[in-house]
Amino acid sequence: MKWLVLQVILASLLLHFGYAYKYETYFYKQKVDHFSFVDPDSYSQRYLINDESWDSDGGPIFFYAGNEGDITWFAENTGFMWDIAPEFNALIIFAEHRYYGVSLPYGNKSFTEPKYSGYLTSEQALADFAELISYLRIALPGAKNSAVIAFGGSYGGMLAAWFRMKYPHVVQGSIAASAPILQFIDITPCEKFGQVVTADFARESSQCVEVIRNSWAAIDAVTADEVGMNWLTGAWKLCQPLKTQKDVQKVKEYLTDVWTNLAMVDYPYPAEFLAPLPANPIKVVCTHLTEPTLEPKALLEELFAGVSVYFNFTGKAKCLNADEAADSNLSTSGWDFQACTEMVMPMCYDGVKDFFEPSPWDFKAYATKCYESWNIYPRPLMAPMIYGGKDISAASNIVFSNGLLDPWSTGGVMWNVSDSVVSIIIPEGAHHLDLRSSNPDDPQSVIDARILEKKYISTWIESYKSENEI
Amino acid sequence: MKWLVLQVILASLLLHFGYAYKYETYFYKQKVDHFSFVDPDSYSQRYLINDESWDSDGGPIFFYAGNEGDITWFAENTGFMWDIAPEFNALIIFAEHRYYGVSLPYGNKSFTEPKYSGYLTSEQALADFAELISYLRIALPGAKNSAVIAFGGSYGGMLAAWFRMKYPHVVQGSIAASAPILQFIDITPCEKFGQVVTADFARESSQCVEVIRNSWAAIDAVTADEVGMNWLTGAWKLCQPLKTQKDVQKVKEYLTDVWTNLAMVDYPYPAEFLAPLPANPIKVVCTHLTEPTLEPKALLEELFAGVSVYFNFTGKAKCLNADEAADSNLSTSGWDFQACTEMVMPMCYDGVKDFFEPSPWDFKAYATKCYESWNIYPRPLMAPMIYGGKDISAASNIVFSNGLLDPWSTGGVMWNVSDSVVSIIIPEGAHHLDLRSSNPDDPQSVIDARILEKKYISTWIESYKSENEI
Repeated sequence: MKWLVLQVILASLLLHFGYAYKYETYFYKQKVDHFSFVDPDSYSQRYLINDESWDSDGGPIFFYAGNEGDITWFAENTGFMWDIAPEFNALIIFAEHRYYGVSLPYGNKSFTEPKYSGYLTSEQALADFAELISYLRIALPGAKNSAVIAFGGSYGGMLAAWFRMKYPHVVQGSIAASAPILQFIDITPCEKFGQVVTADFARESSQCVEVIRNSWAAIDAVTADEVGMNWLTGAWKLCQPLKTQKDVQKVKEYLTDVWTNLAMVDYPYPAEFLAPLPANPIKVVCTHLTEPTLEPKALLEELFAGVSVYFNFTGKAKCLNADEAADSNLSTSGWDFQACTEMVMPMCYDGVKDFFEPSPWDFKAYATKCYESWNIYPRPLMAPMIYGGKDISAASNIVFSNGLLDPWSTGGVMWNVSDSVVSIIIPEGAHHLDLRSSNPDDPQSVIDARILEKKYISTWIESYKSENEI
Repeated sequence: MKWLVLQVILASLLLHFGYAYKYETYFYKQKVDHFSFVDPDSYSQRYLINDESWDSDGGPIFFYAGNEGDITWFAENTGFMWDIAPEFNALIIFAEHRYYGVSLPYGNKSFTEPKYSGYLTSEQALADFAELISYLRIALPGAKNSAVIAFGGSYGGMLAAWFRMKYPHVVQGSIAASAPILQFIDITPCEKFGQVVTADFARESSQCVEVIRNSWAAIDAVTADEVGMNWLTGAWKLCQPLKTQKDVQKVKEYLTDVWTNLAMVDYPYPAEFLAPLPANPIKVVCTHLTEPTLEPKALLEELFAGVSVYFNFTGKAKCLNADEAADSNLSTSGWDFQACTEMVMPMCYDGVKDFFEPSPWDFKAYATKCYESWNIYPRPLMAPMIYGGKDISAASNIVFSNGLLDPWSTGGVMWNVSDSVVSIIIPEGAHHLDLRSSNPDDPQSVIDARILEKKYISTWIESYKSENEI
């Protein structure tokens, strides 16, 4: 036990001094289309390997199902895999998702038109993963009989779960952290998401919620004329001055993202996921948002103090860039494309049960905007049709973990589907807290969750070994 | 019991007098590509419906996973579904496989170049089936809560099995008859298939086997010069006169197909699957093949008497067409394309353990020929990678039935994988005999197999109902 404490302290120190996880970088030649023979093109998929802990005589493979961003960033933010690899003698692999990071099938042209962009789908990405693992099993001496455990968070968690469902012969079990596989049309009501975001702020104070709820009208009042727009540009140190109502709309969308992101990364210790933030960032933000009844301009000044915690915790930001609310490692074009094609996840706000500006779910408008952006109409029923929506009773060996602070939990699997498809709920957890490195400030619930996850991983590995007589 | 006997007699009479199963024909608009957004094209998929027995208040759907031919032909040759639909109050659906029958995505151009032909894959076909069923569940009043049972024989059986594996939320169980899902590279030895064909003839007489084994050299000897070719053209009533060694080769390939097809359709009663044939056709053929030591010309005359049973049982054939060994309802271009792309099933013959002309498996030559035909190189590992080869332990609710007379049984699942993925072996069965209509001459083993299949179907329907509280 002492040893564990020491280890945790050491890990924190390493993190504090900018320790980076070590890996070798490789590339694998993938077909752009795994399911048809129309297009013979191929591309280079990046993947990272660390074999420091690996027992190449039967040790398992821990495989991160890369999601919408640069894979090195996920490697840095998925400490759980690194933490537990030594006790499992596991090989660590992080595979980059096609169309993200440097794994661009058509380079700079990848997002220019459907004939290049159109191969960006989860089905193709999963087939990439399956091909890569099949290849590595042969290419890496010792990997032939290794159990493969998939890990993923958020969209990566969805991929990890679906990977086990569609390729159970390739992956023996999956840890699907904060995976909103139910956040699709006709499965999860669109208003739930915003309600959880709001509840996270309500835990701090009702004033905090009211300040945000009142801010939308205050913005409208202040920015009704040019003078007001100029005032807000100055007061909020906006990088791009407000000139039109479209600019104002963009600022509102930025704020919507900020409150949402804060709910996602409301971790109990300082972290740099999405943005550099203090411990319990919502608590810190809400210390500034205390007077909901102020006049519009005063209210917006108050709000800016709260927003500053998000965009300028380091004190280094020169201005507020309303174009981008999250870390640039998260590719916006890639995910925008996916959200406009297969990953249509309805969101709506009523301003009553949540603190957002009221906004109904309008698929028609959504589809029109997507067509304007990508020259493609969305297929909102594609993912549920392919993956089954909430009817996943035939699946096996998946842990769905969800934190109750995380708004994505509304689209998560929050019940035990069967003996081997189970839900772990982390009451004090934000977005895939369990996948992060252990930390002295971790709540007990995430410590327990990780113990349980390790138990399932052991079970999957053991049953794979006994089935294959290894 | 008397009633059953009467029913069987009636069915035989109806078949004898050309009774055709009744159905309505419909079309459904399918995407040509379910997995990418490059190509927005769609096509019309044909499907057949019979609802005469259907209890639209909870009755199940019996869904035939169409394979490589005109779907009406499969509807006529899958009597089992029609026989048992009344006792299950089932809706019957036969869905045509893309690129067969009238379901040609690009009409006459469908097979002209990869940009049209390339969407002919099993993955796309399964997604068609899933889309169609999802649509019908909504479109047909009462179908929303119907359990879906998939049926299929041969490649259709492979599809039925894979359908359950990949879309368990769409189909609750599958009867996969004579489905050689293991007939792929590095999974099943290539020589096994020919050995079973040979064993089927050896059951009749060793002379029969020897005549066929000796025939290849006899053909070479006779066709060594033009005179001999002319003689064989006349003696065998060939539609296309032999002029070159390539023509001779074609005749040999035709014979290889004939012996193989006879093994596949060695049914205990007259049938018209692949070709119109008498009961126990191999027995009939072998009554002619009795003297293996004859001189080449005499041997070939003897062989022709045997071959005639296959190509001219009706006595109506004017000549022997060596271009086509099987019923024209089986599309040759469609299957040739699939065999040249995804469905690469290695075959080889040594002429010692089998009676075929020796011919090793030569993937390089095979791939070259495929490229010449289709401008595409095969992907022999695609199907095992996507579907798992023999590692199907995570699947559920599949019956794999195989007849021991059927050469395809060598690539079949012949062991119980789990409690719910089971193997039924029919010692006296040829190619998916169990899917055919019941017949007074059925061997007891196929009667037993059908009883067991019905038991599994009932179990799947009941467990679906109890899971969904219907």
